[in-house]
Amino acid sequence: VRTLKLAVIPGDGIGPEVVGEALKALDAAVRGTDLVIEQTPYSLGAARYLETGDVLTDDDLAAIKQHDAILLGAVGGTPGDPRLAGANIERGLLLKLRFELDHYVNLRPTVLHPGVVSPLSNPGEVDFVVVREGTEGPYVGNGGAIRTGTPAEVANEVSVNTAYGVERVVRYAFAAASARPRKKLTLVHKTNVLVFAGSLWKRTVDAVAAEFPEVAVDYLHVDAATIFFVTDPARFDVIVTDNLFGDILTDLAGAISGGIGLAASGNINPDGRFPSMFEPVHGSAPDIAGKGIADPTAAILSVALLLRHLGEADAAAGVERAVAADIAERGDATRSTSQVGDAIAARIGSLD
Amino acid sequence: VRTLKLAVIPGDGIGPEVVGEALKALDAAVRGTDLVIEQTPYSLGAARYLETGDVLTDDDLAAIKQHDAILLGAVGGTPGDPRLAGANIERGLLLKLRFELDHYVNLRPTVLHPGVVSPLSNPGEVDFVVVREGTEGPYVGNGGAIRTGTPAEVANEVSVNTAYGVERVVRYAFAAASARPRKKLTLVHKTNVLVFAGSLWKRTVDAVAAEFPEVAVDYLHVDAATIFFVTDPARFDVIVTDNLFGDILTDLAGAISGGIGLAASGNINPDGRFPSMFEPVHGSAPDIAGKGIADPTAAILSVALLLRHLGEADAAAGVERAVAADIAERGDATRSTSQVGDAIAARIGSLD
Ligand SMILES: CC(C)[C@H](C(=O)O)[C@@H](O)C(=O)O
Ligand SMILES: CC(C)[C@H](C(=O)O)[C@@H](O)C(=O)O
Repeated sequence: VRTLKLAVIPGDGIGPEVVGEALKALDAAVRGTDLVIEQTPYSLGAARYLETGDVLTDDDLAAIKQHDAILLGAVGGTPGDPRLAGANIERGLLLKLRFELDHYVNLRPTVLHPGVVSPLSNPGEVDFVVVREGTEGPYVGNGGAIRTGTPAEVANEVSVNTAYGVERVVRYAFAAASARPRKKLTLVHKTNVLVFAGSLWKRTVDAVAAEFPEVAVDYLHVDAATIFFVTDPARFDVIVTDNLFGDILTDLAGAISGGIGLAASGNINPDGRFPSMFEPVHGSAPDIAGKGIADPTAAILSVALLLRHLGEADAAAGVERAVAADIAERGDATRSTSQVGDAIAARIGSLD
Repeated sequence: VRTLKLAVIPGDGIGPEVVGEALKALDAAVRGTDLVIEQTPYSLGAARYLETGDVLTDDDLAAIKQHDAILLGAVGGTPGDPRLAGANIERGLLLKLRFELDHYVNLRPTVLHPGVVSPLSNPGEVDFVVVREGTEGPYVGNGGAIRTGTPAEVANEVSVNTAYGVERVVRYAFAAASARPRKKLTLVHKTNVLVFAGSLWKRTVDAVAAEFPEVAVDYLHVDAATIFFVTDPARFDVIVTDNLFGDILTDLAGAISGGIGLAASGNINPDGRFPSMFEPVHGSAPDIAGKGIADPTAAILSVALLLRHLGEADAAAGVERAVAADIAERGDATRSTSQVGDAIAARIGSLD
């Protein structure tokens, strides 16, 4: 038996609801394997902050680091809640975990499943993955302001890009492209305006490309890329891009492939020095929290990414097949969060 | 008679072709008004650079400043042309003009015209305008790199945002929203990550909102905004956003409303200290240049923005009506650039 220590961060809003279903799927997926999941829940997010004033303590972080992987639901309170005005849960918790655990690959696959209605009338076969850099760019928190609140205020944000940081994620993206049937990689940036960062990204892609002659390389400015996301998303295979462009493009990717209720993501530390973290792309959706109507599919697909990351490719594929089968038969019927979770969990295993 | 001094920059690729048609429309639109257009052509762009090595000289700039307005086609050579490797025509010409002429409002209307096919199956009534800041943000050129080309390279880009710069564009956007029937303004930013710049934008919108109580104010993170662009673009009326987010969103806006072949833009200096510049959102498209097949509609609609900016609202509306009528009857017939231009010019006036 192989014991996997899983830190579970249900979080806020619909987070606990979808995580509950994701764990059902995980249970079903590991049944019959030699994997044993040892779960430790961590109460983190807006609710915890309101109770204790803590966003993420050093002790929390140290404890989480002891795990093999992390499953996160969603974090964030009700927008505009005055009690949260001082806390930035996103920066202090979600981004802090990504940075402290060196999640330099933010992996976001996009598949338009048969049976899912896209807002595009003619999407074609959408099956691509965005490899979003996770530890640099405008996300580093190197901003600052002077004369705040006066007419002479200046507020700056610095995007930091290093050869070290860009090369490792670009290499990961090439390897991912090489392992896929179409073997195509598109760099998305804005090299004509962000000339220093853009030049580093472009040169790095050109250099690493030499190691992967089988991969066809393409480049698009981020603005042009959004056009192709709606006119010809089938052209994409692997996209590699910076932290902010990746954030924007993956929400758009979720939207064209049936909504972020289906979009899974992995915050990955490929070195294995730190636990990787798997989470749905959607947020905590406080407006529908507690009603049992949130779609747990994105959280369940995040479990598939988790299993694949841990080397359990068969179990991962089993979860994905079960989800695909469930989606294909969804139709218009309204099901509760747990009905969807139960249906998918029941299929896992029975489809093998 | 009122004489208007117009600097014309046809530029590269399809630029000269579409500008030719735009000038036909302008001629037709001012016929019967008291406006006389005095045109001066400026040869600027990749072709000029290849000939002379100049991108934009001080003399060019001084001469252009003497005009009342600028009409630009598109600039930029063939991607990858080694002779252009040293020149950044976009930064050195297009962005230099926007910055030197203090074009702090980059106005980009998006209308889904009847008869135009959107890639969205159910777009609804799309009619919004993006007010993109034009002189700040990550476009300021405050980037830099150290140890370039080594494994220890660091490449930074700085987004600069000032109360001065944000307030003036936000005020313009509120005035624009107030003048429209729906009176709605959406700020798009990424306040949860770009906390300093985001805070400045948010506080500024909140402060200016007090002066425009009739305008309903909304906020979206840029990633979420892209979702609504494909699931419910009809929700937008006026969007105000920073230079980079505006760049990305307006290409997406062009795509959902039938392609950037129809998207016009104005780079506006509302103070009137410098000439404003009107240009299609599309680029120079070297691949189809010289074939007479480029769609001149975006350039012609840019003329409408130019006329409105100069106080000729009736003439502007005449151009827009002629374009709308032409678009409504387009069907599948292939027409050349000049056939489209002639057809629209013929309608201008005859529709009044
Ligand atoms: C919540 C926010 C900080 C986060 C991001 O910007 O990365 C989210 O949008 C995401 O994509 O995971
Ligand atoms: C060509 C480029 C510099 C420009 C920009 O980024 O502003 C273009 O994309 C635009 O939107 O006008």
